[in-house]
Amino acid sequence: MAVLPPGYSIRRIEPRDYEEVVETLKVLTVVGDVTRAKFEETVEFWNNSTVKAGNAEIRAYNPHVIVNAEGRVVATGTVLIERKIIRNCGLVGHVEDIAVAKDQQGKQLGLLLIQYLTRLAHEAGCYKVILDCDEKNVGFYEKCGYRRCGVEMDHRL
Amino acid sequence: MAVLPPGYSIRRIEPRDYEEVVETLKVLTVVGDVTRAKFEETVEFWNNSTVKAGNAEIRAYNPHVIVNAEGRVVATGTVLIERKIIRNCGLVGHVEDIAVAKDQQGKQLGLLLIQYLTRLAHEAGCYKVILDCDEKNVGFYEKCGYRRCGVEMDHRL
Ligand SMILES: CC(C)(COP(=O)(O)OP(=O)(O)OC[C@H]1O[C@@H](n2cnc3c(N)ncnc32)[C@H](O)[C@@H]1OP(=O)(O)O)[C@@H](O)C(=O)NCCC(=O)NCCS
Ligand SMILES: CC(C)(COP(=O)(O)OP(=O)(O)OC[C@H]1O[C@@H](n2cnc3c(N)ncnc32)[C@H](O)[C@@H]1OP(=O)(O)O)[C@@H](O)C(=O)NCCC(=O)NCCS
Repeated sequence: MAVLPPGYSIRRIEPRDYEEVVETLKVLTVVGDVTRAKFEETVEFWNNSTVKAGNAEIRAYNPHVIVNAEGRVVATGTVLIERKIIRNCGLVGHVEDIAVAKDQQGKQLGLLLIQYLTRLAHEAGCYKVILDCDEKNVGFYEKCGYRRCGVEMDHRL
Repeated sequence: MAVLPPGYSIRRIEPRDYEEVVETLKVLTVVGDVTRAKFEETVEFWNNSTVKAGNAEIRAYNPHVIVNAEGRVVATGTVLIERKIIRNCGLVGHVEDIAVAKDQQGKQLGLLLIQYLTRLAHEAGCYKVILDCDEKNVGFYEKCGYRRCGVEMDHRL
């Protein structure tokens, strides 16, 4: 069983995480010109966006961070919960935007974050949790309990 | 240029589409025991769920149907719009749950529906539109202008 290093913890993203989340996401892709105001507005939108799960309203966006013993953000990732008609008006979790800071990779933080988000989605009632990744990361997600199940395709202008 | 057959049209799903949408989705997967009330509640939830796109609020869920000249539903599909931090607080469209009734396949309805949902997402400001599919449908989505870009993985209990 993987466990977080001493003093590390997982929690939801907060508006004050601006600089550290933006920095952490840069290992993943281009973040661009995200101002503090735009970040805070996005977190507020995420916090207020809900999805119907049976009779309950749960959060549609579930952005999280792992912070180290000093409270610094060292990893981030999210799971978006979608309501469908198929599978008895089922819920599906979409894991997105997983990034572990370069100097913190290889400490099982990625694994623990994926396990956390996956459990969160199943506890919310999702019948499956899916994610898209590069071929080179398939082995990592297999260690997290995921299986290859399809092809991701994209359309860009 | 593909065009809809005479009398066919594309519009958003409405609560009254209950039986026909449920029937159409059965070509895709197990729909299960979806009552009229649950269907209507889901459509209402979809209609009220918004996402911030710049200063505008747009619909997060964009479920559509193609209806034939008699007004019968012959195809359905949706695009869910997600707000991110990466790519300058970018929007991504997720095309989901595409189904064309068996007796209506091969008339370019699938192609026209995908093109419609893809345009809708780009007009809403999405920097990319993605979807997951079976290996056997890659050729279809390539005809719709999509390219293979990654691996879909899933986790089920
Ligand atoms: C990919 C990433 C999330 C993995 O996180 P991490 O914290 O470095 O990985 P972990 O330490 O949790 O690895 C867990 C296990 O997976 C293995 N693993 C990690 N990356 C792997 C890879 N690319 N392929 C195969 N196995 C991998 C580890 O060796 C470890 O195995 P072990 O338990 O047998 O020792 C992280 O390296 C990262 O952020 N990379 C850059 C951004 C990125 O690619 N994001 C994912 C987009 S799809
Ligand atoms: C897959 C599906 C959506 C395609 O819709 P459709 O209306 O039958 O297809 P279209 O008539 O729009 O096809 C457009 C083009 O793609 C081609 N095409 C269709 N299915 C194809 C496939 N599986 N592989 C390769 N090409 C395909 C058609 O021949 C046509 O080519 P043309 O323009 O050169 O004649 C539909 O058949 C369907 O609902 N199947 C069952 C459910 C399903 O698999 N959904 C998708 C889940 S990922």
